[in-house]
Amino acid sequence: MQQVDTLLVRGTLLTMNDAFDQFPDGAVAIRGDSLVAIGPTDALLAEYTAGEVVDCSGQIIMPGLVNAHTHMPMTLLRAMADDLRLDVWLMGYMMPTEREFVNPDFCRLGTQLSCAEMIRGGTTLFADMYYFEADIAEATAQAGLRAVCGESIMKFPAPDADSYEQSLAYTRQFIQDWLGHPLIVPSVAPHAPYTCTDDILQACTNLALEFDVPLQTHILETRQEADDSWNEFEKKVVNRVADLGVFRAKTIAAHCVHVDTEDIRLLHKHGVAVAHNPTSNLKLASGIAPIKEMLERGVRLSVGTDGAASNNDLDMFEEMRLAALLVKGATFDPTALPAREALAMATRWGAEALHLGSLTGSLEVGKRADLIVVDRSPLHNAPHFERDPNSVYSQVVYATQAADVQHVMVNGQWLMRARTLLTLDEAAIREQAADYARQIDRFLIAREGNVLNKLVAIGGLHQEESFEIQVKARLDDETLIEQLLQSPVVEMVKHNHYRQYDTYFLFEDPDQGRVRYREDDFIDASGQMVSVRTRLTYTIPDKAGEFDDAVLLSHSRFIAPADRPLRFYREYFQASQECEIHKDRLRWHILYKGVLFYVNVDQIMVPDVKERYIEIKSRTWSLHDAEYKAALTTEILNDVLVLKPDTRVRTEYVELCQESE
Amino acid sequence: MQQVDTLLVRGTLLTMNDAFDQFPDGAVAIRGDSLVAIGPTDALLAEYTAGEVVDCSGQIIMPGLVNAHTHMPMTLLRAMADDLRLDVWLMGYMMPTEREFVNPDFCRLGTQLSCAEMIRGGTTLFADMYYFEADIAEATAQAGLRAVCGESIMKFPAPDADSYEQSLAYTRQFIQDWLGHPLIVPSVAPHAPYTCTDDILQACTNLALEFDVPLQTHILETRQEADDSWNEFEKKVVNRVADLGVFRAKTIAAHCVHVDTEDIRLLHKHGVAVAHNPTSNLKLASGIAPIKEMLERGVRLSVGTDGAASNNDLDMFEEMRLAALLVKGATFDPTALPAREALAMATRWGAEALHLGSLTGSLEVGKRADLIVVDRSPLHNAPHFERDPNSVYSQVVYATQAADVQHVMVNGQWLMRARTLLTLDEAAIREQAADYARQIDRFLIAREGNVLNKLVAIGGLHQEESFEIQVKARLDDETLIEQLLQSPVVEMVKHNHYRQYDTYFLFEDPDQGRVRYREDDFIDASGQMVSVRTRLTYTIPDKAGEFDDAVLLSHSRFIAPADRPLRFYREYFQASQECEIHKDRLRWHILYKGVLFYVNVDQIMVPDVKERYIEIKSRTWSLHDAEYKAALTTEILNDVLVLKPDTRVRTEYVELCQESE
Repeated sequence: MQQVDTLLVRGTLLTMNDAFDQFPDGAVAIRGDSLVAIGPTDALLAEYTAGEVVDCSGQIIMPGLVNAHTHMPMTLLRAMADDLRLDVWLMGYMMPTEREFVNPDFCRLGTQLSCAEMIRGGTTLFADMYYFEADIAEATAQAGLRAVCGESIMKFPAPDADSYEQSLAYTRQFIQDWLGHPLIVPSVAPHAPYTCTDDILQACTNLALEFDVPLQTHILETRQEADDSWNEFEKKVVNRVADLGVFRAKTIAAHCVHVDTEDIRLLHKHGVAVAHNPTSNLKLASGIAPIKEMLERGVRLSVGTDGAASNNDLDMFEEMRLAALLVKGATFDPTALPAREALAMATRWGAEALHLGSLTGSLEVGKRADLIVVDRSPLHNAPHFERDPNSVYSQVVYATQAADVQHVMVNGQWLMRARTLLTLDEAAIREQAADYARQIDRFLIAREGNVLNKLVAIGGLHQEESFEIQVKARLDDETLIEQLLQSPVVEMVKHNHYRQYDTYFLFEDPDQGRVRYREDDFIDASGQMVSVRTRLTYTIPDKAGEFDDAVLLSHSRFIAPADRPLRFYREYFQASQECEIHKDRLRWHILYKGVLFYVNVDQIMVPDVKERYIEIKSRTWSLHDAEYKAALTTEILNDVLVLKPDTRVRTEYVELCQESE
Repeated sequence: MQQVDTLLVRGTLLTMNDAFDQFPDGAVAIRGDSLVAIGPTDALLAEYTAGEVVDCSGQIIMPGLVNAHTHMPMTLLRAMADDLRLDVWLMGYMMPTEREFVNPDFCRLGTQLSCAEMIRGGTTLFADMYYFEADIAEATAQAGLRAVCGESIMKFPAPDADSYEQSLAYTRQFIQDWLGHPLIVPSVAPHAPYTCTDDILQACTNLALEFDVPLQTHILETRQEADDSWNEFEKKVVNRVADLGVFRAKTIAAHCVHVDTEDIRLLHKHGVAVAHNPTSNLKLASGIAPIKEMLERGVRLSVGTDGAASNNDLDMFEEMRLAALLVKGATFDPTALPAREALAMATRWGAEALHLGSLTGSLEVGKRADLIVVDRSPLHNAPHFERDPNSVYSQVVYATQAADVQHVMVNGQWLMRARTLLTLDEAAIREQAADYARQIDRFLIAREGNVLNKLVAIGGLHQEESFEIQVKARLDDETLIEQLLQSPVVEMVKHNHYRQYDTYFLFEDPDQGRVRYREDDFIDASGQMVSVRTRLTYTIPDKAGEFDDAVLLSHSRFIAPADRPLRFYREYFQASQECEIHKDRLRWHILYKGVLFYVNVDQIMVPDVKERYIEIKSRTWSLHDAEYKAALTTEILNDVLVLKPDTRVRTEYVELCQESE
């Protein structure tokens, strides 16, 4: 009799080896960190004695699940902001919150929370890319899970790096520190082709090749990425990455939603492994990855949850189930990914995708003891059919729940027994996570309560203070404007013609001010549109004084180029009211008694307002100057234009629009 | 202080009423079967005393989930046969097994198993359609769940009815027996437009109208159904059903995967409720239902699991999650179905779809006490954010698991407390279900082990015994056949020309015989194909004797029209080997010495065989007759055709094909 440390006996044993061998009454023998025997229970009991014998009757013994793509610390942002469009979610919520909160402590705690959830759900190996990756690796090793870890590298500043050179140096040190660790495989993680320059991608590749470690990246998660690559590089994303030589490294490409046949051929040719993230791809509305074609063309496929902020959990049972279901419905082929192959994607193929196939992913003699024991007895998985060897895979993939996992072992060490975690303190993690949530809530509530803070959070703003004298009147007589321009006391300096499309976002609390999204379409003399400008303006309106017909407006304005679509701002600001003003504007810069005035003649197109309006404005800087200019303005109105007093309009355009509703 | 039976206090209370009111520290008061108060815990504790006060700290109090479409007893067939094409799954496995096993006991047990799973997963109301529906209703009422039940009615014989009139009479009696029951709502359930004649649909409608009960049916689950309806009725499915007046009844239409804009408008116009079944629609590869458009056009939507044979569980948390995720990815719109509305689909909208909105589906005073208490503390749902009232819906929809459900109450009665079922005996159900699984395994194994049984299971077979003399030779010289036909000793009776496409399914055990799928394309004199016939032939080949060049073949043959595509048989028979023979066949019926012979001149096209072959055959009935005909055959070969002896071929075509591999 040989002595081993642990014997698991009397389980339904799924080896998930190449031949998909099963033992209906199976056992495994574990010595140290490795599997020393696998086979029928009676055979193993005849050959081995063990310090611990675990009866797995009514349970399945199988390899632990492999989560091939995730961002561990993001569990701390779970359900913080959901059901938003990708840009609003990412640039409006995730990135500002990450800028504020992501630090080594956040990453360690988030990793512990994720490890706890993963162990409870039967995951034994994962691939992570985030920031402060050394802290993530350390927390993971302490929790006892196996992982491929990579520090995100990109062309923008990150929470832990001002430049990509810093991240690259961090990665080199990280690799040197962790290479050869029994649980952690360091890797290089250029974030994505669209967030990396060619230089970054090549530097990352060279580093991965130098140490022969895997390279993780995101590829073609969105259709936008495909379009942008073509516009910027005149190359498809996969072609660009391949041409840069990135695929010489042991590459794991996450998402690959928008790959076409050529891309798939290239991924296959270069042996690139794909991490399929069906939940996240659906939840963020990125689309449905063509995994049937990838499978048919022999691409190495794996499954990952992505971060919990876009999932919202790390449940690999759910993930492989969705992988198995989605491809069937999307291709009208119920045989596209059978349960057995879906489970392989989440075990052996996953380990192979992470270049750890020789070490884990299946129960085979010599491999590490990374395994889980799953209860087969719950009613949601009754009854059991034995005729078809595939029935047990159906059970695991289509009806098993994370909560059915009983025991988890990684590298020969028990991490969970009978649903009790052995390496992590659940209560402490829960409490510390709750504390972060309270801080983040406070941060976001303060920001949400203040439109200016929300504007600042998305960046690109500059402040501009101004005082302005303004008078406005209905222009009942079209000829008056000719009269003004031909007047000997007026000198025309400049003339413009444009169409303005204004969208005002208004808030219940008027102290919040208002945000205007304006598109200016400049029109040339022949009536052609020659250029477009979009700007975002935030104002807190304030009438600083009144002078007869004219008013003095004080603006505390923030102006930013509106480089995202109107829709983004609509969903981001969540205004209580929105109104549209479209107008055709003729603008003259005139000098009257040596003072510069702006004269706008506006024809409102939306809302449907018949009248034309004339606005006369001038910048000012002091109350005394304002008084003087107000008097000049009234002169222009009364003496040059000879407008009747009843044509004066005291409302702003935005009010016209509100009235018309 | 008012007295109530039960107070649930200190939970996060989601009312799911029209205004989506929430109470962060909420309570509900229950008296008898109904909710008598809902509000902040402190307010209710000040006003009510209760026999039982349940502390729901760290838990969510919410309405029970509504499973709007299922087939309860089919849980007994869970994971029996998966990842097969719809027809193989349905006609090859489900229907034969149902024909064999479905009886009142099966339906009662299956219902108990499903009820147990549903209660454990937080479902309090479901809509069922199956057979022996009175037994299902009884088992459901005993388990204490609420249900809309309908006996399936269709134009084919069912396990409990030889004709639709019987099912209709059964339904009338069923309605009379159950109308007014506190838990069970009887309904009328014509299975689907494609399985019902116009008469059946109208009779069902009239019955539903007579008793003012709901009408359940399947609509447009598959694309095939849309095509078939057009071909058979020259009408689209929804138009046909609407024109027949079916929608005058309170209709619940399951699936609706292949509805177009016109269909959706009609469903909306007639107030038809749709039960969306995303898992089943993906798993059976039916497709993705356009629920975004249905939502936008105001169709009343609900969610259902469908039967466990195509799901494979009755987990409504999974189902509403998938509903919420799938529509986003399929329409590239992450805002298409936010978590809050997904939960509404699985609660209040579900109840409304089943025409029970006034009774259940939300926590409102006066409604029945149908509610669940869900643990909010698991790590897979940590941390919690309070800023956005939608975060709690995100938690419930995107990360809550069935196993998080703690307590379940229906109609004021506790069905589960702290995950212990109170109305059902889990162990007994599990054991009885296991017994059925063993019986079904035996039935299927016996059938699988025998090709003939598998053939019989799919029906339409007739047996034919025959003895045949046959001789075959290479036809090296093309002119020989002219010589034969012009010979004065030969009289030509009939001539045919066809192309034959044969697919042989071969099995490892040669005693299993072989199945041939043959397509005969008949060619007319001008070379045009005039008709096609497909036949399935099962033979156990047997050489009964040899006579010089000729052989006596004994055939025990079963022939059936092959009314399903070749692909069906391929997937159904799971042959160990398959081979293809395509040939161009010229056939003459000739009389030689008054005896009828069949002469085939075959040019093999697949596999690539250069030689032409000639076959001479004659039917026989006795060894003596066989000897005589063998001699005549040899005469034709040697004397009329003058074929050299070395041209004789002793292999069958199927062997040629096997050799070529």
